[in-house]
Amino acid sequence: MTTAEPGGPVTELKPLLGDPTRPVTIAAIAESAGVSIPTVSKVINGRSGVAADTRARVEAVISQHGYRRPSPAVRSNTLELVFEEIEDMWGLQIIRGVERVARQQRVGVVLTEFGPQRNAIRYWIDDTISRRPDCLVTVAQLSEEQRNQLRARGIPLVVFDPTSELPDGVPFVGATNWAGGRSATRHLIGLGHRRIAMIGGPERILCCRARLDGYRSAMDAAGLPVEPALVTHTGLHQQDGEVAALDLLNRPDRPTAIFACNDLQALGVYQAARKLGLRIPADLSLVGFDDLPVANLVDPPLTTVHQPLIEMAVTATELALALGRGEKIRQTGLELATTLTVRRSTAPPAA
Amino acid sequence: MTTAEPGGPVTELKPLLGDPTRPVTIAAIAESAGVSIPTVSKVINGRSGVAADTRARVEAVISQHGYRRPSPAVRSNTLELVFEEIEDMWGLQIIRGVERVARQQRVGVVLTEFGPQRNAIRYWIDDTISRRPDCLVTVAQLSEEQRNQLRARGIPLVVFDPTSELPDGVPFVGATNWAGGRSATRHLIGLGHRRIAMIGGPERILCCRARLDGYRSAMDAAGLPVEPALVTHTGLHQQDGEVAALDLLNRPDRPTAIFACNDLQALGVYQAARKLGLRIPADLSLVGFDDLPVANLVDPPLTTVHQPLIEMAVTATELALALGRGEKIRQTGLELATTLTVRRSTAPPAA
Repeated sequence: MTTAEPGGPVTELKPLLGDPTRPVTIAAIAESAGVSIPTVSKVINGRSGVAADTRARVEAVISQHGYRRPSPAVRSNTLELVFEEIEDMWGLQIIRGVERVARQQRVGVVLTEFGPQRNAIRYWIDDTISRRPDCLVTVAQLSEEQRNQLRARGIPLVVFDPTSELPDGVPFVGATNWAGGRSATRHLIGLGHRRIAMIGGPERILCCRARLDGYRSAMDAAGLPVEPALVTHTGLHQQDGEVAALDLLNRPDRPTAIFACNDLQALGVYQAARKLGLRIPADLSLVGFDDLPVANLVDPPLTTVHQPLIEMAVTATELALALGRGEKIRQTGLELATTLTVRRSTAPPAA
Repeated sequence: MTTAEPGGPVTELKPLLGDPTRPVTIAAIAESAGVSIPTVSKVINGRSGVAADTRARVEAVISQHGYRRPSPAVRSNTLELVFEEIEDMWGLQIIRGVERVARQQRVGVVLTEFGPQRNAIRYWIDDTISRRPDCLVTVAQLSEEQRNQLRARGIPLVVFDPTSELPDGVPFVGATNWAGGRSATRHLIGLGHRRIAMIGGPERILCCRARLDGYRSAMDAAGLPVEPALVTHTGLHQQDGEVAALDLLNRPDRPTAIFACNDLQALGVYQAARKLGLRIPADLSLVGFDDLPVANLVDPPLTTVHQPLIEMAVTATELALALGRGEKIRQTGLELATTLTVRRSTAPPAA
């Protein structure tokens, strides 16, 4: 289904009648889309029997004008929580934050994982719409089409820690990744390190770019050059960190400190250091990012940037539920502050 | 609400009429409980307006005779998954297994965590009943009353890894904890250890008792005495394991090997060994239980009994959904086999 091809159905829409300051009625939507009122009702309620292009046209009108379900009596008291894949540790903290709010507000949480082959994504939007949730918190990346489908049903959406650029107005809750990268790097500089490497994540992931830019910013502010050879881009898993660290640490002019884009990469750096007989922190200082539970279990415990995942999930859930109740929210996009947790993987460089 | 006090409502029930080999009708339930058909219908559909003792009486009749919803048309295509508290790592694997089946069978998963203060438990059963799930998988321990309430609505339940004795006939999926404890201990005996300590879990938790009995059985089979001083009972967290291990390892005749009831306790043993300057496995062999992801991340990687959590969750979910479809299942209680994962925390004892 496409919604906005040039010359396609969307361009045929008539302007909406009525007072622009008031919620749009079903009749006005039907008039603008050139369809009957029952057809609009079918689309809104997720029932079958509407041709794909008609449905797209109705959704486009609704998405543009923000139809809101008139009656709170249709609330299902459920919230949908959506992941691409639920990752070790990381995912659990998000779930815990969502459950905490769900308990307080007595709301059921419907959890979906699209899965490794994204199998669930084909039918997920239809099933979600038919369950009529009050709102949605998504860790998974949804397409613009999916966002429009939800919007057309008056189901508000909050994006958790967006991995890519969102259009203005899409509610989200993230963390101050840039500031976190900066404070990690400043900590290493403050200990006396000068040759500081960064193991970066994939460039397409927004938070990875922000952490890297934070590193660059701190280096610049201290008058230290960013050596291209000491900045790598790799995946976010442990083995990616290990391979990248082996490469960095086998250089003749190896860095005295590494800032890893996340804790899992940092775990890989521990393994690389062990293979090379380098001691942390005596021979190598290491800072991670996320502060997963495992960061405190490794030896030595990892200095890392604490990302307040539970608080982020709490905030995203409260925001989504408030939007679902039709409350007017002034600020629907926000980043929560990271903090540096200093443990024992960082020390001044060997003289 | 009580259902079976001597002389209370339950004793007044009349025997059910009709063919005992056929599903019980609402009329027969009403007759037996001495109430009207609309009252039975209200109880089954979770509506209000029924006195607590009447409701209990109807539920008792239904629970005893196994009313099954007549029409599959009322299926909600949702499954409820319930935790007391979602634990680090452990909980996530269960969720993943459930989600895998939910994707295959296109079922929505409603996730509930009762939380640290078990706040959600007060209203959870009412909310669950009103959501009319097809079935339920519970990691949390439910009361007999709650089980009856679900049974009365024809909502089948599968208990995941039961922590206490269940009445016969309650479906469950667990792991072969006894056999796992036995194989862990046999591995240590096979390496030449004789003074093998066991850090046990709380005695009220069934799987902990089974693991301990497996240890005892292997010691007996090898003709080795079980020294009471080398068997401790403590909690299942890391710090519990650390405290217990410090105690064991500070003895003049310290054990050469420890079998910990779970991996988190084993992580605490690493910390105790480090504090005492004992090397694993040169000075101390260590086996855990669960095979959490972290077992492979610690140094040295932990030898542990692999509990097939994902497969257990898959099996429990498939079983619950099959029961929800009204399929006849021959065997509704089962344990999946554990396997020993040998890594580098075990070695022969120092000569």
